Amino acid sequence: MSDQKAQLTQSIEAQGLKVRQLKSQAAEKTAIDAEVQILLGLKKELATLEGADKKSNDTKPAKKAGKSSFTLKTAKGTKDYNDKDMAIREKVFNTITKVFKKHGAVTIDTPVFELKEILAGKYGEDSKLIYDLADQGGEECSLRYDLTVPFARFLAMNGKEYPNIKRYQIAKVYRRDQPAMTKGRMREFYQCDFDIAGSYDSMIPDSEILRILCEALTNLDVGKYTVKINHRKILDGIFEVCGVPEDNIRPISSAVDKLDKLPWADVKKEMVEEKGLASEVADKIGEYVKHKGGRDLLEMLLKDEVLTSNANAAAGLAEMGTLFDYLEIFDVMDKMSFDLSLARGLDYYTGIIYEAVTEKSAPPKLAEGVLPKKKSGTDEFDESTVGVGSIAAGGRYDNLVGMFSGVNKKGVPNLQIPCVGVSIGVERVFSILMSKQKTEEIKSNETEVYVISVGDGLLKERMQIAKELWDAGIKASYMFKNKPRLDKQFDVCEKEMIPFAIFIGKDELEKGEVRVKDMRSKDESQKGGVTIKHADMIKEMKARLESL
Amino acid sequence: MSDQKAQLTQSIEAQGLKVRQLKSQAAEKTAIDAEVQILLGLKKELATLEGADKKSNDTKPAKKAGKSSFTLKTAKGTKDYNDKDMAIREKVFNTITKVFKKHGAVTIDTPVFELKEILAGKYGEDSKLIYDLADQGGEECSLRYDLTVPFARFLAMNGKEYPNIKRYQIAKVYRRDQPAMTKGRMREFYQCDFDIAGSYDSMIPDSEILRILCEALTNLDVGKYTVKINHRKILDGIFEVCGVPEDNIRPISSAVDKLDKLPWADVKKEMVEEKGLASEVADKIGEYVKHKGGRDLLEMLLKDEVLTSNANAAAGLAEMGTLFDYLEIFDVMDKMSFDLSLARGLDYYTGIIYEAVTEKSAPPKLAEGVLPKKKSGTDEFDESTVGVGSIAAGGRYDNLVGMFSGVNKKGVPNLQIPCVGVSIGVERVFSILMSKQKTEEIKSNETEVYVISVGDGLLKERMQIAKELWDAGIKASYMFKNKPRLDKQFDVCEKEMIPFAIFIGKDELEKGEVRVKDMRSKDESQKGGVTIKHADMIKEMKARLESL
Repeated sequence: MSDQKAQLTQSIEAQGLKVRQLKSQAAEKTAIDAEVQILLGLKKELATLEGADKKSNDTKPAKKAGKSSFTLKTAKGTKDYNDKDMAIREKVFNTITKVFKKHGAVTIDTPVFELKEILAGKYGEDSKLIYDLADQGGEECSLRYDLTVPFARFLAMNGKEYPNIKRYQIAKVYRRDQPAMTKGRMREFYQCDFDIAGSYDSMIPDSEILRILCEALTNLDVGKYTVKINHRKILDGIFEVCGVPEDNIRPISSAVDKLDKLPWADVKKEMVEEKGLASEVADKIGEYVKHKGGRDLLEMLLKDEVLTSNANAAAGLAEMGTLFDYLEIFDVMDKMSFDLSLARGLDYYTGIIYEAVTEKSAPPKLAEGVLPKKKSGTDEFDESTVGVGSIAAGGRYDNLVGMFSGVNKKGVPNLQIPCVGVSIGVERVFSILMSKQKTEEIKSNETEVYVISVGDGLLKERMQIAKELWDAGIKASYMFKNKPRLDKQFDVCEKEMIPFAIFIGKDELEKGEVRVKDMRSKDESQKGGVTIKHADMIKEMKARLESL
Repeated sequence: MSDQKAQLTQSIEAQGLKVRQLKSQAAEKTAIDAEVQILLGLKKELATLEGADKKSNDTKPAKKAGKSSFTLKTAKGTKDYNDKDMAIREKVFNTITKVFKKHGAVTIDTPVFELKEILAGKYGEDSKLIYDLADQGGEECSLRYDLTVPFARFLAMNGKEYPNIKRYQIAKVYRRDQPAMTKGRMREFYQCDFDIAGSYDSMIPDSEILRILCEALTNLDVGKYTVKINHRKILDGIFEVCGVPEDNIRPISSAVDKLDKLPWADVKKEMVEEKGLASEVADKIGEYVKHKGGRDLLEMLLKDEVLTSNANAAAGLAEMGTLFDYLEIFDVMDKMSFDLSLARGLDYYTGIIYEAVTEKSAPPKLAEGVLPKKKSGTDEFDESTVGVGSIAAGGRYDNLVGMFSGVNKKGVPNLQIPCVGVSIGVERVFSILMSKQKTEEIKSNETEVYVISVGDGLLKERMQIAKELWDAGIKASYMFKNKPRLDKQFDVCEKEMIPFAIFIGKDELEKGEVRVKDMRSKDESQKGGVTIKHADMIKEMKARLESL
């Protein structure tokens, strides 16, 4: 831990310097604020680390002394979601699920752990982040790292039954990453995937995926968003015509992928100095990847004879044209930004690729030469220094299922099921929505009616009323006390934002009456509520609840 | 594995013998059938084992040869849930969640793994079934074994904010048990818990939990069910007045717990021979625990002066009386069976305990002296030989939170939050419901309208119609082909049970018309559907869908 602390302390100093510099340069307020946020995040991380150190120091001697004391916490990188968190989370899941179901999706569920060999060789460098189960005799297993690989495994096993499927899955995945709680990056987090598997005519499922993504983001109310879109074949064609050697195409592609975080000069440096690309080749690439646009960009590229003479590029551009036609019908073309600098990290994409960003998730702009912090021991950038990043991402991956199906004598996979999909970063959506809402305004239970006694305790009578409400499907509660105080019962209604109360008193019950009150009403004349016949209670409450 | 196989082979032989004996004795058909089922289950397990052996033999040489071949399967004791399984599962979860929310519950979510020390010392012998994560540097963690211990940990951490809470949690738990797939026992399975935490007046939350359990089981439509109910204090009182030494109370209690699976003679044998109880003490216990009933049994016990002079028993009996009053108001007393033989395994219960059984989940009755199979290497009975067991269970546990809160100088827990809860065995509910339904009759997607082209391909026109339906919130699909065949489009409607189709043709579209057809209709006169104005399509479809 002390290594980590030393590193953090260093980062805090560097970040502090940057903030002071910006201030002295009278930089824009938003730019300074962004850097200050990063600084505060780093400080909070350090405090957490120090807290954990302290706690484990406190605990260890007690343990040695044989006491049953221990650290009362959740495991590193995991957290509990309380009732308010879950209320927002359920709303997010329901919104997304509704969109998925509207498009005919089914859901499947795969186990939280897989055989280790299923995950092996799928995530490149990131494989080191995979959680393994202990060897307790039996098979070697690992917690799932994403939902895509288990889905491909499912298709490879059940491809005969499911030659095509539209499926969604909302489930937790696990990565032994350095947690950055301040930015919502955890070791356990939800993914929310929608994929269409099957052999179909070109770009039809692809366009539906993009329509679904836009419906979901619009309904989630995350603010203005843009879907950056590109095509692996166009990108590969560009690399080929610029003169990138074949075995350097993926490394160069992953350098291009950093263009949303780094200025061109730094990316070029990586290409030339680290990856040995000729400077003039890099410059040619630089000319291409600076372009963003829509139809206009596509038309410009179609006029580029060097590019269109490349088979990959020509195929990619043709598909892009078809896709744009479909996206126009689906009325989502205005959300798209055809962006030649989008490359996406994962190797398995074979066709269109995309990434949605919102204004709130866009990384802070860095000045040339200022590098974002890298994750310790890796070559990846620490997202805590570059904004929350994309809010959804995906693409077409036609060969992943084949990796699981084995190959025949000719080396051809026994089963190929082309797929296209999207994964919505619900944790990020969740952070955006939580920041828009005051915690105390979130109603986490759905109780509609509180049954209140006036004067006496009347426990059995309250139980009887509650039972009648439950029988009618009305969400009702009462206080679990023999003789509750009236003010305490009022407090519950207010705290839990329960819209209606039914008051019972001895005299009224004997007359076969109860009182109903709208607890949200500020109308003084309605202060005491309305007396109704007990026999009419259900009818009355149903009518009131319907008009909510 | 060969050990396991040898054991299974032996069990199969013994079971075969039992079946032949029963047949030769002309035993009741249901009794024979039950034993045959067990035999088939054992044979299937053996086949699975042999299959796994074969597979891993097939695989290993390939691996050594450096090929990428591997066993394509899910990890032992886990399975995928396909679209049909999930449709039923979602229905079960929705039914249960609706009941929980009606009673004012909120939900919380805890991580799938906890610090190892959080789970330590909570499950007695069964701790050996806990899955550990590999030591990859950092904390020692384990997958959760149930949802109760993480909930108690949550309360201990957040007790100030949540002095009382009604919470439910539906999530997966993990046990490294010998899987018995034939009976639906898995290493990864869902639990569905509802608990009420907080200090309240006696038996009020307890009675609501039992009401909730009955509402859930009734709404789940699992058939006739009974809730066996008892009280730990009554049971302890009985043991005390019969003369069980204090340190033998829990072991004797766990012997009593086997009475639903074993005849009294076998239980007595365990008490006397294994646990060293005096034979006459065992006989006294035997007199008590044979009783089942309702109010009548309570009244009988209240007249037992020996018993009522015991403080524990007196307290338990008084609470039971209060509880019965409340259960009568809640109209669920007829589902209860006050059963003195119910003891429940877990140590942490402190008050009432209960277990729901359905006719379908009741174990087959064993003849005296015939023992159910024990789990290999343990003292527990293999449920595969005793029916699926209880369908829900729970009780009051007032001291669990205190175990996490640490103690003050006087040895008193820093925080005590009394709890009562129930866990519904959704996997069992699920098995019962799946067995009632034909797979091909389960509609796993919710598509309401299929957009079909007649004559030409009309892809863009179908996309346009689908887009209009989606915009109106209608669940619509179409075939992902440029020129789909008409019969193939009809096939999809039938296979996916899509109720409506919209037909479009070139001529009709030009006239601004579409055709709507109810695909479920057998009415020959409606064969071609009804022609409507394209402009009226949404209105028409909404009306038709509302009347579904």
